[in-house]
Amino acid sequence: MSENTKKIYKPRPVSGFPEWLPEVRRIEQLWFDHIRKTFESYGYCSIETPSVEELDAINAKGGDGGADVDKEVYVLERLHKEEGEKEARLALHFDQTVPLARYTAQHFNELTFPFKRYQMQRVWRGERPQAGRFREFYQCDIDVINVDNLPMHFDAEMPAVMWEILSSLPGMENEKIQMRISNRKILIGLLKALKKDNIVEITRIIDKIAKITKKQYIELMLQHGMTMDEIEKVDSVLASKNPRDIIAENEEMKEGIEELAFVMDQLQHLPEGSIVADLSIVRGLDYYTGTVYETVFLDDPGYGSICSGGRYDDLASQYINKALPGVGISLGFSRLFDRLRQQGKLPVKGASPADILMVLPAEDKRALASATASTLRKRGFNVEMYHAPQKIKKQLAYAEKKGIPYIWFPPFEDGQPHEVKDMANGTQAPATPENWTK
Amino acid sequence: MSENTKKIYKPRPVSGFPEWLPEVRRIEQLWFDHIRKTFESYGYCSIETPSVEELDAINAKGGDGGADVDKEVYVLERLHKEEGEKEARLALHFDQTVPLARYTAQHFNELTFPFKRYQMQRVWRGERPQAGRFREFYQCDIDVINVDNLPMHFDAEMPAVMWEILSSLPGMENEKIQMRISNRKILIGLLKALKKDNIVEITRIIDKIAKITKKQYIELMLQHGMTMDEIEKVDSVLASKNPRDIIAENEEMKEGIEELAFVMDQLQHLPEGSIVADLSIVRGLDYYTGTVYETVFLDDPGYGSICSGGRYDDLASQYINKALPGVGISLGFSRLFDRLRQQGKLPVKGASPADILMVLPAEDKRALASATASTLRKRGFNVEMYHAPQKIKKQLAYAEKKGIPYIWFPPFEDGQPHEVKDMANGTQAPATPENWTK
Repeated sequence: MSENTKKIYKPRPVSGFPEWLPEVRRIEQLWFDHIRKTFESYGYCSIETPSVEELDAINAKGGDGGADVDKEVYVLERLHKEEGEKEARLALHFDQTVPLARYTAQHFNELTFPFKRYQMQRVWRGERPQAGRFREFYQCDIDVINVDNLPMHFDAEMPAVMWEILSSLPGMENEKIQMRISNRKILIGLLKALKKDNIVEITRIIDKIAKITKKQYIELMLQHGMTMDEIEKVDSVLASKNPRDIIAENEEMKEGIEELAFVMDQLQHLPEGSIVADLSIVRGLDYYTGTVYETVFLDDPGYGSICSGGRYDDLASQYINKALPGVGISLGFSRLFDRLRQQGKLPVKGASPADILMVLPAEDKRALASATASTLRKRGFNVEMYHAPQKIKKQLAYAEKKGIPYIWFPPFEDGQPHEVKDMANGTQAPATPENWTK
Repeated sequence: MSENTKKIYKPRPVSGFPEWLPEVRRIEQLWFDHIRKTFESYGYCSIETPSVEELDAINAKGGDGGADVDKEVYVLERLHKEEGEKEARLALHFDQTVPLARYTAQHFNELTFPFKRYQMQRVWRGERPQAGRFREFYQCDIDVINVDNLPMHFDAEMPAVMWEILSSLPGMENEKIQMRISNRKILIGLLKALKKDNIVEITRIIDKIAKITKKQYIELMLQHGMTMDEIEKVDSVLASKNPRDIIAENEEMKEGIEELAFVMDQLQHLPEGSIVADLSIVRGLDYYTGTVYETVFLDDPGYGSICSGGRYDDLASQYINKALPGVGISLGFSRLFDRLRQQGKLPVKGASPADILMVLPAEDKRALASATASTLRKRGFNVEMYHAPQKIKKQLAYAEKKGIPYIWFPPFEDGQPHEVKDMANGTQAPATPENWTK
């Protein structure tokens, strides 16, 4: 391209595809490190799957959820695809559950069950561009899959792990969040005991309970064939704070009550009010079959759930002729991170990971400065070496701008000691590269 | 979907989109951790950019390289895009340099220069599916960008950082690799001194030198107007092992010689033969303007370069009216990792990150086992709690299959001590959760 015809394309952000400045990215890395460390401390192993799945496989996902999500899929096209090439259509994954199902089925013979995995990847939703909606974002998921039968132990482990993370992420310390747990068998069992044949419709009304008025709720229930007595029965179950207070009217209810009670028992050691049984939690009913989770900001419940999941009976029935029950929970990483970023709650400091800036006093001190930096790096410090023997003032200003906390001065003349300046308090003292500490 | 009509989609790998089993993924994580740690130890800060750029911006990339790469781009389509929606076309990035250019221009006023960044993300190439070619893979890049002028310090830092990484990645310890450095100003200066007006063509012949016979090389050179004397002159420069032996015939050659000599001087402390000056290194000549790097396996040079880069005069001229010279180097992570994986050279151990499996002796010991696991986690150990009070043999077999090195037995009866079994040597000894160490 010649200079004359050169065109400037003013760079602009792509709606829905967030990116951060280096100082924000540093905190994002802290978050990922913290989440990964906690996942691994419970023995979850990491997997990553490709960014794409075959479109047919994504569409094969059963349930109503599949149809909704289907609209939001990004399909890939090779820009210069030759005519007549036959290839399966590929789509970017919109969650990490469809890929997990495919992965588990594909590698079934090479995995150890119960298969405990975590996955922290980007997912994509091809939504209409609109303010505040991400089209590319990170999710952090844990799931456990087993063959035939999955112990309830894991239903209790999921919220324990996520609570540990959410309550200690840098910047989240003062947020009042609450995790709410229910078990669908209780409500479904009750509706079966009431001999209802429109269970899905009724649970959908219950799912809307927080968004409509009491009057609207009752009207809707009546319209769907519920009597006032039955509505009261449902409401009394929904209001229960302790699953053991609920009277089981059939085997399914009993199972649900026992399961939920077991999960809550295992979480007793956590702070009062952090994790509660809440029977009004329903979540997309066609997918989950037992335990369900959601997590809200207590002072902003309308923001929606930041960490949700539940138990499913059959993860990979579209891929494999085996019963693979699972339980999983997903942290909406980018949504949560960006909320705190916008609220100025992230502990943002400098952009640089360097602990020390190595001053370059003069060109003939380059070898000495470089060797000193190398010694300090071997001792575990991050050391940026200044690139040119510019004025010391300029080198200091650079360190300050990048948020580098210590400045190392190699001897300006032979026989002098090294010195280190602490940018936080301005003090400067002699030091030796072999044993200096912060 | 009803059971009767259920169709099984046999899961299959998508050609060119690799994924690993958990035990291989663990090593991949070790690699990423190691690379990140080294990048940060030199003060590089992390950024991530979206997976997509606007297609126009990608196509705006100047030079011949742009046109070649253009064929390999994946474009995104929303599956259910409404008629008449107007949106910029988005494409998955095929490298991290185009995104870096856009990022630097877009955030120009918020960055500190020299801007030292690292980036470890997936990139995509929409190639025809073919064996052994990745269409989705990780690259690990460092680049430094400055305004107007970029000190040569960074040209020397790039290979030092990458050598440190490549020579110490788990599994790479016994690989004989060599990094080769040249400076294009030398060869181009020489051809200008010879008054050639087809410099690009001639350098392309030189770029092919390893792949053609000496006879073919001379024929091509003669065909392109070089005399035998001139060819000999070029060959003598190409054969130089020390840039200081080259006689500069003009200012450009002199500059190139001095720059290359400076870079090699800074790398003197590295092992003999690890990084060498090699004037025959050319690389896609339309892009780089000074220093160039490539890295080969000495016993398999035909495999091509695993770590390459160089200096460019003007990174972001399509986005911003500023001179932004840079220098960068890119490690072809997935290609290198998969080579070692296929050769069985990765130190693959267990799939689980757990240090300890907590045995669950009986249902009534669950609270004790859980509290013990929690104590050990707080002390920094990764502890997987066994999920059900099954036979001890079964619990041990699970630990062995997952490669968990220690088994913790909480007291089976009150008053007994905890015990820990070391799976490596079979010994078992009393232990306390508060002070046990490996």
